[in-house]
Amino acid sequence: MCLEQQALSQILETAVVAARLAGQRAMEEINYVKATLKNETELVTEADRRCQQIIVDRIKESFPDHGFIGEEGEPGAIFKRAPRGEPSIWWVIDPIDGTNNFAHGIPIFTVSIGVFHQGRPIVGVVFDPATDSMYAAVQGGEAQLNGRRIEAGEDDMAPTSSVGLDSHFGDPLPLWVGQIIHTSRFRNFGTTALQLAYVAAGGLVGTVVCTPKLWDVAAGVLIAEAAGAIVTDWKGQSLFPIDLDGYEGRPMDVLAANRKVHPKLVAWIGA
Amino acid sequence: MCLEQQALSQILETAVVAARLAGQRAMEEINYVKATLKNETELVTEADRRCQQIIVDRIKESFPDHGFIGEEGEPGAIFKRAPRGEPSIWWVIDPIDGTNNFAHGIPIFTVSIGVFHQGRPIVGVVFDPATDSMYAAVQGGEAQLNGRRIEAGEDDMAPTSSVGLDSHFGDPLPLWVGQIIHTSRFRNFGTTALQLAYVAAGGLVGTVVCTPKLWDVAAGVLIAEAAGAIVTDWKGQSLFPIDLDGYEGRPMDVLAANRKVHPKLVAWIGA
Repeated sequence: MCLEQQALSQILETAVVAARLAGQRAMEEINYVKATLKNETELVTEADRRCQQIIVDRIKESFPDHGFIGEEGEPGAIFKRAPRGEPSIWWVIDPIDGTNNFAHGIPIFTVSIGVFHQGRPIVGVVFDPATDSMYAAVQGGEAQLNGRRIEAGEDDMAPTSSVGLDSHFGDPLPLWVGQIIHTSRFRNFGTTALQLAYVAAGGLVGTVVCTPKLWDVAAGVLIAEAAGAIVTDWKGQSLFPIDLDGYEGRPMDVLAANRKVHPKLVAWIGA
Repeated sequence: MCLEQQALSQILETAVVAARLAGQRAMEEINYVKATLKNETELVTEADRRCQQIIVDRIKESFPDHGFIGEEGEPGAIFKRAPRGEPSIWWVIDPIDGTNNFAHGIPIFTVSIGVFHQGRPIVGVVFDPATDSMYAAVQGGEAQLNGRRIEAGEDDMAPTSSVGLDSHFGDPLPLWVGQIIHTSRFRNFGTTALQLAYVAAGGLVGTVVCTPKLWDVAAGVLIAEAAGAIVTDWKGQSLFPIDLDGYEGRPMDVLAANRKVHPKLVAWIGA
């Protein structure tokens, strides 16, 4: 095993342990949540902050010189610490993706941890603690769910196929959103990272994400790609490399789908 | 304890055990599912049939004279056995509500068992096996999740509130569906019974169900009402009593919401 692979394995192991610790903590707190408004449309809870701290602390133990971008910073800001030294590695963290579900006692949320080097994801884990499902991938490797290989499959758009949407489409609703709703079983589980993981596992044939932040998609994108899905922006363009030093929370647009469905969704969105 | 309460308790206990047995079996099978088309838009799996059999067998042990209405009958038909003798009690069963998720390996599905007397639900259980969540209610009693009381709450429609939708709205999309999507965080978890349970627990402020069959809603309706939600058809009219002897799978329309949101949704749908 060359050094690089060994380093990736150590990073993956740390990500898995950190995600599990944070997920367990979130499950302990879900029935006692106090949510406050983060802005007009978003909630945040003390558990989000505590879980992020658990993750950051665990990573620092193993990798004190790595950098962090996390959803939960000082009020109105993201959490950001630049890496020191080389290799320059960033951990991009959403401690609770699906805070709105979590804050309302709905146990459908995930811990999302993506690790970046030279602007591209090299390790990703998405942990769904309520069902004990750990989705993971390493750059160049296969995607796994609890250690078992998963693949995005080749199911086409159909009345029995499901496509993920989210809650942030504008008014009036874009025509293609209606098209997806009429053509497939649309789903909105309320966690972007989990919907990307479901694309990876073939449960969804695709998912369209409107204005996510990097931490929502950092891990799921790598897992979906490793499972054979295609992940781009809405125009079909590559999402990466991304300038992490300059990233301050800019919203993205993301489309992940299996090979058969991806070109159709790009065409629908672009029509 | 009067006889009636004792009978209700025995029925509830049987429903809980049957739902747990079926849910455990479904979880064992979820990674090995073979789905076939039931009709143009619906899938069915061998697990649906096996789980229904597990439930029916368990109920017959305790209540050999009770009647059954189940989703899975001979091809193209529902499963139906009329009750014998008095009291005339019907068990209305959806062994896997959310078959489409289940058939695609998405562990968000439920076992739904509702029990009817004189055309009204008297006991309901909705079991979410992947998160080990048992929602239950008895006529005139409180709604519970794993033995803990749940309440529908009084959150209003808001950008931070979630409303459940399903996948069966027509083309073009009714205006009020767009209105819900723009005003709230809409959700479509892919199981009607679970969305009714989430209304009961306050996770969703409401859910609008398009053309469900009785077995999709039989249990969830009672649980939501016991939790303080209002459950009606889309016009605000009572769903029950229903003629079980004559029921052969007629689609209904159902609206469940907390007391603050229900009148608003009735008005939106009726506008």
